[in-house]
Amino acid sequence: MPGVVVVGQVARDLVLVVDRVPEEGGSTDVRERQELLGGKGANQAVACRRLGAEVELLGVVGADRAGEDVLAQAAADGIGVGGVLRREGVPTALLVDVVGPPGVRRLLEDVAPAALLTAEDVRSRAGLLQDAGAVLVQLQQPGPAVVEALAAARGALVVADGAPADARTRRRVLDAADVVRADGSEAEALVGWAPRGVPETVRAARELLEQGPRVVALAAGDADVVAWADGHVVLPHLGEDPVDPTGAGDAFVGALAVALLRGEDPRTAAWWAAAVAAQVVGTAGGRPHLDPDRLRETVRRHRGA
Amino acid sequence: MPGVVVVGQVARDLVLVVDRVPEEGGSTDVRERQELLGGKGANQAVACRRLGAEVELLGVVGADRAGEDVLAQAAADGIGVGGVLRREGVPTALLVDVVGPPGVRRLLEDVAPAALLTAEDVRSRAGLLQDAGAVLVQLQQPGPAVVEALAAARGALVVADGAPADARTRRRVLDAADVVRADGSEAEALVGWAPRGVPETVRAARELLEQGPRVVALAAGDADVVAWADGHVVLPHLGEDPVDPTGAGDAFVGALAVALLRGEDPRTAAWWAAAVAAQVVGTAGGRPHLDPDRLRETVRRHRGA
Repeated sequence: MPGVVVVGQVARDLVLVVDRVPEEGGSTDVRERQELLGGKGANQAVACRRLGAEVELLGVVGADRAGEDVLAQAAADGIGVGGVLRREGVPTALLVDVVGPPGVRRLLEDVAPAALLTAEDVRSRAGLLQDAGAVLVQLQQPGPAVVEALAAARGALVVADGAPADARTRRRVLDAADVVRADGSEAEALVGWAPRGVPETVRAARELLEQGPRVVALAAGDADVVAWADGHVVLPHLGEDPVDPTGAGDAFVGALAVALLRGEDPRTAAWWAAAVAAQVVGTAGGRPHLDPDRLRETVRRHRGA
Repeated sequence: MPGVVVVGQVARDLVLVVDRVPEEGGSTDVRERQELLGGKGANQAVACRRLGAEVELLGVVGADRAGEDVLAQAAADGIGVGGVLRREGVPTALLVDVVGPPGVRRLLEDVAPAALLTAEDVRSRAGLLQDAGAVLVQLQQPGPAVVEALAAARGALVVADGAPADARTRRRVLDAADVVRADGSEAEALVGWAPRGVPETVRAARELLEQGPRVVALAAGDADVVAWADGHVVLPHLGEDPVDPTGAGDAFVGALAVALLRGEDPRTAAWWAAAVAAQVVGTAGGRPHLDPDRLRETVRRHRGA
């Protein structure tokens, strides 16, 4: 299978599991602490790697100790980090996930503007994108970097995730991406209007399919809609005991991309993605071992096939 | 001036300044991030050092990178760290201060039981305590470690801060300490009943003076009461634009100890401590440069002397 390149945020993720967030002036004990490689780019890269793909990251970290640590962790996870830029004088992005009570997350994000990709950064890594089998591009990165990545990835399966930064970027995304995906808060920027409920979300997905992409995945409340030329599927959230939603959307995107790259049909790829997301929400920090038997069992049980 | 030894928590302090804590499922941007040497022991040590004292720390960190980092920072601050134990397999304590809106703090504390001092730990550092001019003992450390430190510090000015862990520790504290100090939530464990308002707090301080200590400092809402054999002073909080209360109590204790060690009378030492605390609450992270001219000016303005 040709490799995957993920273009997006690489960060340090500090996961703090608490019983509750303290009142003003109060304190609480942390029940569990994890310090991980995080950020949407790294999370998607880890999911793809755990599903067996060869993966390279393209992103920015600081020339600090945290940057060293997260790149060492990515390398230990089997992810190629030659494409990650180390920027002098920039602190590596920090994401603090405060998890508690179970299933409820609050995110404190410290991402300096200089920890985002520029078009020049992407140009300097164009070779990586040209050789990729699939390129996952996160639309949280600045528009010019996204546009550059879409152009360089022309030969690959292009998957765009998130809300485009502006109208020009949106146009380029719809022209260039094979797969687009947005969560509830991002859908309006991608679609142009805010779909509510499953029927409107299906209609929004059909509109997007007419503008270029071959597969569209949109969140609709507690479900995901995945649509393609001649069909769609509405996937319930399959996680039974959600602990931490961190990384579930990223794992969904990664799994969808890997399954499509392997030649699965969109319906099968969608079920696979939902099963992977379910395994992720069952674990604080969103970085579980992905057990193929359990994934197959989850799909079989819910899909009924 | 003979040196100060501080017996207490050494931790990593992560200060995150936000506009507000996000709702369930929400996120917020971090406006300012600091990663510092923290914990009450280290905070008191830094305050003493910035007021010109020679300082040694006695505490526990892990044999991890965070432990290395905080000890390097303490050493760079001019604090002796030869007395700090590095414990294998124990994560260095982490304190996450979420500050926002201005003046409001929430604390998430991750302190493993093995990151606290044992009596054996203190015994192994007895020489340090015997040679000290002043020893500051934090009562958050386990009772047996506190009792051991009080015994070893016999020749020094002994300052005990916090709520004693049990009745035996309380008895030893009142017997051995020259100065005791407790904040609002700690006073009941030290006094034996819960003083409310300034007059009751003054009465509680007088009761404690009869049981051994020479100076008693108790918080009373938005003021501090400092009492000695033949007088007391009620100090308002002198900070005009409080940003972050982190470390203000620790700076108060450190400054009180250093002033008494220098031979100041209790009233002067108390005003000095209040001025130092005011300078600390004006800074996120609680680690300002302590400017002697500004401190003198603050005391002059409020004390009216």
